[in-house]
Amino acid sequence: MPVVNVNWWKGAGEPERRQLVSELTETVSRLAKCPPEAVTVLISDVEKDHWGIGGKLAADL
Amino acid sequence: MPVVNVNWWKGAGEPERRQLVSELTETVSRLAKCPPEAVTVLISDVEKDHWGIGGKLAADL
Amino acid sequence: MPVVNVNWWKGAGEPERRQLVSELTETVSRLAKCPPEAVTVLISDVEKDHWGIGGKLAADL
Amino acid sequence: MPVVNVNWWKGAGEPERRQLVSELTETVSRLAKCPPEAVTVLISDVEKDHWGIGGKLAADL
Amino acid sequence: MPVVNVNWWKGAGEPERRQLVSELTETVSRLAKCPPEAVTVLISDVEKDHWGIGGKLAADL
Amino acid sequence: MPVVNVNWWKGAGEPERRQLVSELTETVSRLAKCPPEAVTVLISDVEKDHWGIGGKLAADL
Repeated sequence: MPVVNVNWWKGAGEPERRQLVSELTETVSRLAKCPPEAVTVLISDVEKDHWGIGGKLAADL
Repeated sequence: MPVVNVNWWKGAGEPERRQLVSELTETVSRLAKCPPEAVTVLISDVEKDHWGIGGKLAADL
Repeated sequence: MPVVNVNWWKGAGEPERRQLVSELTETVSRLAKCPPEAVTVLISDVEKDHWGIGGKLAADL
Repeated sequence: MPVVNVNWWKGAGEPERRQLVSELTETVSRLAKCPPEAVTVLISDVEKDHWGIGGKLAADL
Repeated sequence: MPVVNVNWWKGAGEPERRQLVSELTETVSRLAKCPPEAVTVLISDVEKDHWGIGGKLAADL
Repeated sequence: MPVVNVNWWKGAGEPERRQLVSELTETVSRLAKCPPEAVTVLISDVEKDHWGIGGKLAADL
């Protein structure tokens, strides 16, 4: 049932995504009291020149 | 008015997206009682190594 | 696998939501070539005074 | 930097949300190699009659 | 065409939302080179006990 | 604190994104009464053949 969207800067590789899915699913399924199979995790790699912080593009920081 | 976001695995082609937009718009505009022109559909193709199910990357299943 | 988010104005009742989920799931599972059980639909009812169109709150239109 | 959206069924209380934020932030900041202060977590409690699975409202299952 | 989602803490009133929609629409339509009528803005008021920063619920800060 | 997602058609360049982040952040931080540093803006460039309006792909219009 739970759907988790992760938006982070482009740069992490497949091993990090694999670990992210594993750990987030364990946490969410435990706290939502649902089986891990019910948990969906969507990962979006965002370029720093498409991400703004404090009024600036992260690429410019 | 309605905004529909579809996240699905990368793989469907333009014909499927065209059909998806056509059918989703018909359904949503009918049930929302609004003109089809008011319906926006955004489609995100997600790589299987950016999608987690049951604690695993879909690419690993 | 597919995750569909529908944002529309608050007002539709449970019968419309039931119909929306049924039809959207049929369409998406057919076009994504996945079983209906894999399709998640999230529906957000949005108040008109939290929705902007053409620079105005929908509530003011 | 990372922004995590969690959509799950309404029902978890504040203690679970507190734990969710704590654990998700630790995992994401470690894997994104960014400070915990940079991680934002947004939690949406969704009613079962606004959530579709396999073509049905979760409330009907 | 552009769809803008704003998630912020619950607390702003309708006047602020009206102003937000007006200014965001003007900026986005100018930069996207599209008419203001094409711009949709969705505003989500999020409770502080559903928002995590730095591993803590904003309500606890 | 505020998180703003902008979905628009692919085509704007970095200068427009820079301007978008600058202006959106100023508006949102003023109206949310929070420092600009607290505002995150995520920009998604969407291909016209992944965007539906009025039942058609924007690429077909």
